[in-house]
Amino acid sequence: MIGVARGLTVGLELRARLADLYCAYDDTLNEGALERWPDLFTEACVYKVLPRENFERGLPVAVIYCESRDMLADRVVALRETALYAPRIARRITSGICLRSIEGGVLCLTANFAVLQTMQDQPSELFLCGSCRDRVVDDGGELRFAERLFIYDSTIVPTSLVYPV
Amino acid sequence: MIGVARGLTVGLELRARLADLYCAYDDTLNEGALERWPDLFTEACVYKVLPRENFERGLPVAVIYCESRDMLADRVVALRETALYAPRIARRITSGICLRSIEGGVLCLTANFAVLQTMQDQPSELFLCGSCRDRVVDDGGELRFAERLFIYDSTIVPTSLVYPV
Amino acid sequence: MIGVARGLTVGLELRARLADLYCAYDDTLNEGALERWPDLFTEACVYKVLPRENFERGLPVAVIYCESRDMLADRVVALRETALYAPRIARRITSGICLRSIEGGVLCLTANFAVLQTMQDQPSELFLCGSCRDRVVDDGGELRFAERLFIYDSTIVPTSLVYPV
Repeated sequence: MIGVARGLTVGLELRARLADLYCAYDDTLNEGALERWPDLFTEACVYKVLPRENFERGLPVAVIYCESRDMLADRVVALRETALYAPRIARRITSGICLRSIEGGVLCLTANFAVLQTMQDQPSELFLCGSCRDRVVDDGGELRFAERLFIYDSTIVPTSLVYPV
Repeated sequence: MIGVARGLTVGLELRARLADLYCAYDDTLNEGALERWPDLFTEACVYKVLPRENFERGLPVAVIYCESRDMLADRVVALRETALYAPRIARRITSGICLRSIEGGVLCLTANFAVLQTMQDQPSELFLCGSCRDRVVDDGGELRFAERLFIYDSTIVPTSLVYPV
Repeated sequence: MIGVARGLTVGLELRARLADLYCAYDDTLNEGALERWPDLFTEACVYKVLPRENFERGLPVAVIYCESRDMLADRVVALRETALYAPRIARRITSGICLRSIEGGVLCLTANFAVLQTMQDQPSELFLCGSCRDRVVDDGGELRFAERLFIYDSTIVPTSLVYPV
């Protein structure tokens, strides 16, 4: 469901387009199609994964920090070619996507996420959960993320954060 | 997604309005904006958090039981000013919201919920899950909950239930 | 939310009908209304629950494998009348339902699922998660599943898989 904050009037078509974008995002990562992931962002963009504590205190430190689509693409190459890690599957659950405001063509949304991780020969477990703060724009007819912050609830640094959230 | 039970015909606009209400509910609690929470209910309302066992046997005992918007507001004041508890974050996941019937202007819905809780310096964990039984009405142009039951699956009493579900 | 893959144009009405079908599926199993479960499938249908490993290698072995609505009904009878198992509640979370293609009247969708299980006097826990690969058709005016594959992420066989996923 795409919800819209009180006071905002938004057509059903835009809700559907937003649903498509969020769905494409989860789908791309769930399928492990990392090469298609950067295309969901604008060329200049911000992508961060950071603990709630840092976000609330305005501390800039993030576990993952990319400032352009090229940096996202670099990250994918690094993951594919150089990183060493035990095989795992990350399964994403997204809930409560909410369009909170529209500021000069920028759609500001929040959402909740959970990542369920499965390591080989182990049961699936809750790996990370938190909220998203997103800025979405119409980028030449296609909705794309100009900013995606994944703010996770735990204060423990997820050292085994391999795939993008 | 807002689903509608077979046999029921419901316009897309109403689905969207319901999505907005459910989204606002989760959003309010996720953001810790407890002061805005009672406004999502009608003035006379029922809010209960109770174990499935009690619900199925028709036993009235509930872990949380409020019968008016004022009681909800009282609860928020108590939480803010008197309650002592370790800091925690509750993250809500809602799924499968289903409009099952409309009885004399009252919309009867069910949904599934999970609450993921994070205590300081601990990993996030599944805290509570279950189903909602809700009654929603148009309250002067605004959809509000006339009744919200959170029926959790576990028979263990969640002693550490601090925030409203 | 029902998302639609890029390049596909789908009306809001069809999205709503799909939301209704997925909602009815989860609702039926969450409520334990197993007798209504087979009616969500076409008469000739495929229903499988299998590990991701087998799916990816094309191995046919599945934990549950039914090839018709009648086999689904048989399974329900067996569950009700002969199976012995400790009481439990299975709570379903569905996320990211995505219509990926339409091939000759067959709607191909993917989705993510998590099953949260609660045994008596125990806390709720994450039991299974994974992705669905579904084929949906219009079966005389009613959308029904012609195929539902539940591909779970763990390589551990869930020996205690009692209820259908």
